[in-house]
Amino acid sequence: MGIIVQKFGGSSVADTEKLYNICKHIIKEYNKGEKVVVVVSAQGKTTDRLITEEKEITENPNPREHDCLVSVGEQITISKLAMCLKEKGYNAISYTGWQLPIITDSVYGGARIKYIETEKINKQLEMGNIVIVAGFQGINEIGDITTLGRGGSDTTAVALAAALKADRCDIYTDVDGVYSSDPRIIENVTKLDSITYDEMLELASLGAKVLHNRCVEIGKNYEVPINVKSTFENNSIGTRVLNHKDLEALYVTGVAKDDNITRVTLIGLENKIGRTYKVFKLLSDNKINVDTIVQSAGEHTVKNISFTVKNTETKKVLKILNENLIELGAKEIIHCDELSKISIVGVGIVNNPGVASKVFEALYENNINMHMVSTSEIKISVLVNKKEANLALKAIHDKFYL
Amino acid sequence: MGIIVQKFGGSSVADTEKLYNICKHIIKEYNKGEKVVVVVSAQGKTTDRLITEEKEITENPNPREHDCLVSVGEQITISKLAMCLKEKGYNAISYTGWQLPIITDSVYGGARIKYIETEKINKQLEMGNIVIVAGFQGINEIGDITTLGRGGSDTTAVALAAALKADRCDIYTDVDGVYSSDPRIIENVTKLDSITYDEMLELASLGAKVLHNRCVEIGKNYEVPINVKSTFENNSIGTRVLNHKDLEALYVTGVAKDDNITRVTLIGLENKIGRTYKVFKLLSDNKINVDTIVQSAGEHTVKNISFTVKNTETKKVLKILNENLIELGAKEIIHCDELSKISIVGVGIVNNPGVASKVFEALYENNINMHMVSTSEIKISVLVNKKEANLALKAIHDKFYL
Repeated sequence: MGIIVQKFGGSSVADTEKLYNICKHIIKEYNKGEKVVVVVSAQGKTTDRLITEEKEITENPNPREHDCLVSVGEQITISKLAMCLKEKGYNAISYTGWQLPIITDSVYGGARIKYIETEKINKQLEMGNIVIVAGFQGINEIGDITTLGRGGSDTTAVALAAALKADRCDIYTDVDGVYSSDPRIIENVTKLDSITYDEMLELASLGAKVLHNRCVEIGKNYEVPINVKSTFENNSIGTRVLNHKDLEALYVTGVAKDDNITRVTLIGLENKIGRTYKVFKLLSDNKINVDTIVQSAGEHTVKNISFTVKNTETKKVLKILNENLIELGAKEIIHCDELSKISIVGVGIVNNPGVASKVFEALYENNINMHMVSTSEIKISVLVNKKEANLALKAIHDKFYL
Repeated sequence: MGIIVQKFGGSSVADTEKLYNICKHIIKEYNKGEKVVVVVSAQGKTTDRLITEEKEITENPNPREHDCLVSVGEQITISKLAMCLKEKGYNAISYTGWQLPIITDSVYGGARIKYIETEKINKQLEMGNIVIVAGFQGINEIGDITTLGRGGSDTTAVALAAALKADRCDIYTDVDGVYSSDPRIIENVTKLDSITYDEMLELASLGAKVLHNRCVEIGKNYEVPINVKSTFENNSIGTRVLNHKDLEALYVTGVAKDDNITRVTLIGLENKIGRTYKVFKLLSDNKINVDTIVQSAGEHTVKNISFTVKNTETKKVLKILNENLIELGAKEIIHCDELSKISIVGVGIVNNPGVASKVFEALYENNINMHMVSTSEIKISVLVNKKEANLALKAIHDKFYL
């Protein structure tokens, strides 16, 4: 039999009862004869509590010490889970990120995995043991603890599955799969049986928050079959994340909303070659991720450029642009943070020209104004007033699913 | 200037305010030009809380996983303390036991330090940085986390001082030194300016609980000057632990009480050569620590042997002895756990024959019966009824100090 990697998040391991609950998923695969590797996050609110305590000390924690601090959460979970499995009569052994090791770069707080040493895991699996690995953490080349950023346990799981050439990676969560939209906002959402890596990437970056973006990238690059399923349902089928979908699949996969964006507009930019390039080169040099760029011609000698950034970056972006206003040849910078982005995603969009018009129709019928539109092969995004965002989400969703 | 190792226990680092409080002791030495290495315990009740959670899972935790779990407490403290010092403008860097590494044997939960690699510490000290090390933990040769047993942070500190050839090791605690007896029971206790390693060893093993026994042993073997002083007083002089005391020193150093003992008596043992040896060989083979042995001749063909063990060992000891009753040639095993041990310690005892009679006089004057007596060169111990133990402690203490 092959290797199965299972990943359980913070709410699935929040207390002793829940730790014992996930044992049944682990034991079920083990008893089928599979070699099981389990990746876990910190219990419930452990990491949040540590960060609250850290804030008492300083608003600007040293990144190396921050990673040393927050990595203890997963260390607590792995040892407890190993104890639970042993108590149930199964041999299990835990490993922290540095014990394997999981080698990362040195970007504390957002490290990328460079290499996973699988020797210890393979040896334990050969001995018939269940292996438990701390998610979210690694070690850099000078022996410091690093963390992969929030949600990084997904990344650990899929990277481990790739390194171990596992048959699949099961991501257990508190919902039973990926939905066509956010079930907390929309009634009658559809659970998807399958989704492509590309669609999942768009949905994850759009705030659907089911899978960490980087884990989907790794899954795509190494062709790791990923299953998203429920921790709390015994026979959850979940959603498969795959390279290609079945032919019968819906041409629209999901509709997502992102409230945490700001639209920034450069007004009165000279309409000369290289002006646009200069703007985005400057932002990229300052490590700003820019999303959804729209350039309008405006008057014949000047043009306006709008783009969206994450709310957390707004202050930095405005500072950089204003400092370089003359250099960039712009008259003025304005911004608006009262907008939300609604996006519709699906590999079928490119071959179905009617999708965009259906989106606009849904908004028109509900008297919702669009402030910006942007389309790609598998995505259509519109900006609407934040107050009307939930209505817009529902209108677009229902247009395609009801 | 030289290297100073400072150790702060759990109550000295219990919260953010207290972490900032100990910074002043660290900075004071640093600003004198000393190279400062700081060893810290887990904050307040962190380790106790983890053990409570562990008990929810199992009464018999796997020792390897237990050590992985409880070692997180110190990891939290080191990173927080490094942040505090940086916030105050001082460069500090933290190391866990495995990061240095501190190599131990594989006795999980009670590991002994075999070797400390000091390269990273020395490099950081040369760069002018303050180094913070997690107490209580190490790593064994197969890369598992180990812990040194409760109170092991003292051991880490003194072992580090020995490895770094430090000028001294300052143990900060919530009392301002070592006292002639327990201040919670006796009024008018005397704070000792100095005490020898041997006296401290006797007092620590007798329940005076100021210093962990093993740390005193290391201090003695490597001649590390140890200072016990108060975290909460600014100009605490504390108590020096040294090899030899000043000539004027008191010939009695301290009086201690231990309530957690059981007296076990083997009755009717054949009075033949090798019988006593057999008893203690059997106990030693079973890793039982025996204290205060008294052998009385009794009738001419039989003898009785009494000894004390820790209460936690009583059940095990009785089981072993009863299983081997015939083999040992004893008639019966009896035990009593209603006794306390009062001990008086001092390097001057051997040269002052009047000490024992003064102890007996103090008890006689207070109408307290002795159930067993044992003497060594630097110690006299008596067993009394547990109910009369505090009175006995006070009577003996006052006889020598008032």
